[in-house]
Amino acid sequence: MTDQRKRARALGITIGRLEPGPLNAITDVAGIKVGHETIIRGDGDLVVGQGPVRTGVTVVWPHSDGSVAQNPVYAGYHQLNGNGEMTGIAWIDESGLLTSAVAITNTASVGVVRDAMIAYDRDRFVYEREPDFHLPVVGETYDGWLSDINGFHVRPEHLYAAADAAASGPVAEGSVGGGTGMNCHEFKGGIGTSSRRLSAELGGWTVGVLVQANYGSRHALRIDGVPVGREIGFDQVPSHLQERIVDGSIIIILATDAPLLPDQCRRIARRATIGLARVGGNGNNGSGDLFLAFSTGNRGMMAGEPGAPFTIRSLPPDAMTPLFEAAADAAEEAIVNALCMATTVTGVNGRTSHALPLEQLQDVMGRYGRGAVRR
Amino acid sequence: MTDQRKRARALGITIGRLEPGPLNAITDVAGIKVGHETIIRGDGDLVVGQGPVRTGVTVVWPHSDGSVAQNPVYAGYHQLNGNGEMTGIAWIDESGLLTSAVAITNTASVGVVRDAMIAYDRDRFVYEREPDFHLPVVGETYDGWLSDINGFHVRPEHLYAAADAAASGPVAEGSVGGGTGMNCHEFKGGIGTSSRRLSAELGGWTVGVLVQANYGSRHALRIDGVPVGREIGFDQVPSHLQERIVDGSIIIILATDAPLLPDQCRRIARRATIGLARVGGNGNNGSGDLFLAFSTGNRGMMAGEPGAPFTIRSLPPDAMTPLFEAAADAAEEAIVNALCMATTVTGVNGRTSHALPLEQLQDVMGRYGRGAVRR
Amino acid sequence: MTDQRKRARALGITIGRLEPGPLNAITDVAGIKVGHETIIRGDGDLVVGQGPVRTGVTVVWPHSDGSVAQNPVYAGYHQLNGNGEMTGIAWIDESGLLTSAVAITNTASVGVVRDAMIAYDRDRFVYEREPDFHLPVVGETYDGWLSDINGFHVRPEHLYAAADAAASGPVAEGSVGGGTGMNCHEFKGGIGTSSRRLSAELGGWTVGVLVQANYGSRHALRIDGVPVGREIGFDQVPSHLQERIVDGSIIIILATDAPLLPDQCRRIARRATIGLARVGGNGNNGSGDLFLAFSTGNRGMMAGEPGAPFTIRSLPPDAMTPLFEAAADAAEEAIVNALCMATTVTGVNGRTSHALPLEQLQDVMGRYGRGAVRR
Amino acid sequence: MTDQRKRARALGITIGRLEPGPLNAITDVAGIKVGHETIIRGDGDLVVGQGPVRTGVTVVWPHSDGSVAQNPVYAGYHQLNGNGEMTGIAWIDESGLLTSAVAITNTASVGVVRDAMIAYDRDRFVYEREPDFHLPVVGETYDGWLSDINGFHVRPEHLYAAADAAASGPVAEGSVGGGTGMNCHEFKGGIGTSSRRLSAELGGWTVGVLVQANYGSRHALRIDGVPVGREIGFDQVPSHLQERIVDGSIIIILATDAPLLPDQCRRIARRATIGLARVGGNGNNGSGDLFLAFSTGNRGMMAGEPGAPFTIRSLPPDAMTPLFEAAADAAEEAIVNALCMATTVTGVNGRTSHALPLEQLQDVMGRYGRGAVRR
Repeated sequence: MTDQRKRARALGITIGRLEPGPLNAITDVAGIKVGHETIIRGDGDLVVGQGPVRTGVTVVWPHSDGSVAQNPVYAGYHQLNGNGEMTGIAWIDESGLLTSAVAITNTASVGVVRDAMIAYDRDRFVYEREPDFHLPVVGETYDGWLSDINGFHVRPEHLYAAADAAASGPVAEGSVGGGTGMNCHEFKGGIGTSSRRLSAELGGWTVGVLVQANYGSRHALRIDGVPVGREIGFDQVPSHLQERIVDGSIIIILATDAPLLPDQCRRIARRATIGLARVGGNGNNGSGDLFLAFSTGNRGMMAGEPGAPFTIRSLPPDAMTPLFEAAADAAEEAIVNALCMATTVTGVNGRTSHALPLEQLQDVMGRYGRGAVRR
Repeated sequence: MTDQRKRARALGITIGRLEPGPLNAITDVAGIKVGHETIIRGDGDLVVGQGPVRTGVTVVWPHSDGSVAQNPVYAGYHQLNGNGEMTGIAWIDESGLLTSAVAITNTASVGVVRDAMIAYDRDRFVYEREPDFHLPVVGETYDGWLSDINGFHVRPEHLYAAADAAASGPVAEGSVGGGTGMNCHEFKGGIGTSSRRLSAELGGWTVGVLVQANYGSRHALRIDGVPVGREIGFDQVPSHLQERIVDGSIIIILATDAPLLPDQCRRIARRATIGLARVGGNGNNGSGDLFLAFSTGNRGMMAGEPGAPFTIRSLPPDAMTPLFEAAADAAEEAIVNALCMATTVTGVNGRTSHALPLEQLQDVMGRYGRGAVRR
Repeated sequence: MTDQRKRARALGITIGRLEPGPLNAITDVAGIKVGHETIIRGDGDLVVGQGPVRTGVTVVWPHSDGSVAQNPVYAGYHQLNGNGEMTGIAWIDESGLLTSAVAITNTASVGVVRDAMIAYDRDRFVYEREPDFHLPVVGETYDGWLSDINGFHVRPEHLYAAADAAASGPVAEGSVGGGTGMNCHEFKGGIGTSSRRLSAELGGWTVGVLVQANYGSRHALRIDGVPVGREIGFDQVPSHLQERIVDGSIIIILATDAPLLPDQCRRIARRATIGLARVGGNGNNGSGDLFLAFSTGNRGMMAGEPGAPFTIRSLPPDAMTPLFEAAADAAEEAIVNALCMATTVTGVNGRTSHALPLEQLQDVMGRYGRGAVRR
Repeated sequence: MTDQRKRARALGITIGRLEPGPLNAITDVAGIKVGHETIIRGDGDLVVGQGPVRTGVTVVWPHSDGSVAQNPVYAGYHQLNGNGEMTGIAWIDESGLLTSAVAITNTASVGVVRDAMIAYDRDRFVYEREPDFHLPVVGETYDGWLSDINGFHVRPEHLYAAADAAASGPVAEGSVGGGTGMNCHEFKGGIGTSSRRLSAELGGWTVGVLVQANYGSRHALRIDGVPVGREIGFDQVPSHLQERIVDGSIIIILATDAPLLPDQCRRIARRATIGLARVGGNGNNGSGDLFLAFSTGNRGMMAGEPGAPFTIRSLPPDAMTPLFEAAADAAEEAIVNALCMATTVTGVNGRTSHALPLEQLQDVMGRYGRGAVRR
């Protein structure tokens, strides 16, 4: 079997100097749950409305304590390049509160997933006093090269399935959930995750990242600084996108148990750019590079009364620096994991998006001094 | 008939010193089309999924020349308070381009309308080279006090109907389209519009505004500076919302034929706050006060080649000041028109949202020196 | 004496429905100190470098506990129109921390005041561990119509004097400190202040505002909704600026003891627009309408360690609404106070900026139903 | 002489795949002029007010056609981390116009340079109608480790000297002008520059970058992806800053002759993050990472009348992608040039900031496959 996929660290690739959490996943942040619903149907020629379908939905729950509307967490948003959609951002920008789970899907299905999240919330949770309305957070990247995106195959039940399937523990990566039909640096892309845990001296906080990676040109790909994309040319692995301008998007979700305020979450979100830049993301014009960071370290922000403020915790400004490093490194490694774990997928009109070949990758890394020199 | 509605100017109320355009509507900006689809169904007790339904969709086309994706206009966004949703903003913030029509509906139906706009665009327009994807612009305000909002009664066909019905000429106001179930300052609210035309010396430009008004407390309402809300108390006209905190939202769409760049559109959008503030909007916490301004004065922004820039026009900074005045005044009057034109509506559980009583309004205006003193 | 000035409330003008604090001043927020240094020198023709000089510096201390660098408060910034300067904003936007006092002066003296604040901080405070650097906050409006602004008459000692003179208690208003040479709605403007205190049920919080008002056209002036500027024409009080486009700026400082986070301060700052709009500010192109809000309700934000977060307090989103009303109303009244308290000033080339005539003002208010009708 | 400095390309280091302009400097953008004033005075122990002094001022003129106030260019600003100061940004954010030259100096001297720029403008230029005021752009990084920063040694005449000395042609790099006392990745830092020229097919546009680099930890330094900072340890080159947290700032000025609008300039500014991230910048908490981009491709933006718009040019969205690549690559190389060109400097209290040793650098690059493998 040539397509045995491995995560970056299993290949000897380590990003940065900080240690990952036990799962090296966003779920290392306590309480976070991730669920995927993968939709694969049909083969052959595109018939809009029929398929082939290579898409899905991924849901990230910021905690395991029921309704996020009732029990929100602080969050902050940043966009490197805004050629994409993430609903719910106006309220996050205003209040600093994430009041829903975060769903990620394909570009044409943002709406159906968004409305379904309103229905889901009403169906699944019991409220003392139900909120009048919800403003769900749904991001997207475009999978129309492999999937019948204009057939609108994602239905409310797919959001329900992904949300219900969400669990803590290891996270499936690669061609799953929202990442099913995605490409990255002209290899197969999709879902990736990673985490970092700071030393006790620096607070012992965990930062976890999950990406849906669907961006980038072959030539720009660098892994731990090595120009992998220049070394594994189109002669070795055909580029599925040589026929057109290579754009595409990446959604990056960052989570931490460090008790951060909304502004501090926004600062964390902005550091996703650092990790993305090191892998080769330029925020191309056609790309929606949308980043959302949240902190699970404070809760109860709907609980206070005007005359009885609630109490929360925060960290002094200088404590942000190691969190920035953790966020940048975990973002970088999450993208590399997406590339290393994604399997080759054939979709619409027989088009094939090829997985990054791992043996060649290791060979290139060795030629550029990785493994052979002082680290 | 007690409920003969009239626009503000027909009642002797004039806002500001600038002249409106011939229609005193957003359609005074050449090429703009507005369409409403109103959905009214059922009476009596709320049965989620069945009704009663008092909702709809309103669509504003920035021009009459086909696909906005292919032929975008410059636009800019501002939010006074972000407790609301407007999809498509990430791309407007990034590129300065409005690449779709603007739809307005209820809070729970943003998603279905958004995805339907993607389908509509593919169904109705023929492209030389179809864009890979669309990022439609859909705003919302909450009509759940009068309508079965969680019944998801808006369907793709309603978006199609509103988009197809769009026309230049006079614009229906009040309890129509997206404004069907809305309240404003604890009277019946909904759709309102107004415009201003600058003198030839100031460029002769037109600024048009359309609002979907669903915000505000009774006490805060002022019309042309007169404290109408304090004068027409709950004893005279019952407040439909006394039972709860009064929040709610307002979407303000501003359009001009002045040839503005995206940054300049953003400046115009920010001035919607001025008009809203004068009527009594405070941007309450629960309100989504989302403003979008666009300029029809430049076109062809997808047409250039990297080495062959396209040519556009703009105005010097100082020329913005009269446009700001026009935008603020037209926004103020559009809200007053929504109030004056909206008819009393009874919806869910027999709740009634009462129209602003026009005779009493005129009486109050007179007592506060309007009509009697030097203008 | 024709020029006996009175504050708005002494003239029977009350803005909004909330009660002011005991001083009706920003100093109603406990700990806040305000100091003015007024520089008036010379008469007659302008000789750049010599005078006449009509300028000054105003300093607002967010607390009375020494170095703000060591003991910052949360803050947030908003600009309605950015034709102005406020230094130190990049760091406030980033960290949410106000780490210096706030100084306001004329446009050409921002630099000298800013650097002097660095020196002052080192001279006046003893640090356990001195910060490497300071990023002082200095705002400005333009007084070049009355003063030899290009003569650079503000010197470091003036900042020292204003900072040292700062005190709690009543605040001098009108043609003092940074407001000495300012105009507002084509009357004499300058410094104004006001406050609101919420009921115990709403938390009992105080919101205080201080403005340096130097903006606006005569025709646009409204006081409590009454079109005062249209009623007191140039025939009654000459307009000092009819010779040119009327622009100019306003700095609005908002303070509260409500325990707000940086994002919440930013929301408060944005509401300054509401009050300004109601008086007649449009954010004209030439205007620097820059607003800074801070909260004294949390302290100790430099004190935590990465592993030992500090504890702060905040309010739930819904508690913001009454604070918004307080901020808007206090901003409106602070501007009216600046107008009512400013005395006529003659400066460069014998130009005279006339005070708003208070008897005429009261007469106009009466004609428009104020005092005579139900409030 | 051991300290023969060379630029990166002279050492065989090339960043990215695009070609630089003839000078590989920001001055490859036609019309741009750069001037430095370097202030070096005294040795030995720090006596505040006396020295030693290792500081200066660097001025970038966006064109060679006189007053920038009268003849502005479009510009956009972005900050990765806001622990720094750049004056004049409120107006750039508002209007999209850069209306002054750009000066860079030390943190404590921003004010004096800013006010001096107002005086300079009045002294050097003749106006038909002089603008009422100026809002100069002055950025800073902190040189207090090597220089008596709190002695305020920069005077107005230093700004005059740097502004007058500005010239097109090659740009002095390293320990000069504003960069005299700066450190970068715990080596000596300062001024660096680079450029890229797009192919004729992509428009033939030039993007130039100038940095004042004063940020970063040793361990994080990467040059063309090679972990140079990990390889050249403190045992080989002492770290001047091991005694404290390593923060610091970087100002990045980006210029292009591509005819971009303000929004598009902002997009270019945001890409400075990409280049900075690849060298090892994380936007640490203590860092002011402030980026300003401008376009010389449009002029005459003060010239229009309200009724007679001026004409400008722009590029379609897709044309931005190659400009982004150029901006990121030139920013990366400009930083590397700063490191490669800066000479060892000894300052306050005998502290020495060591230059990056170029032979060791080349040795490390070779060990990591650069020069030996397919590029």
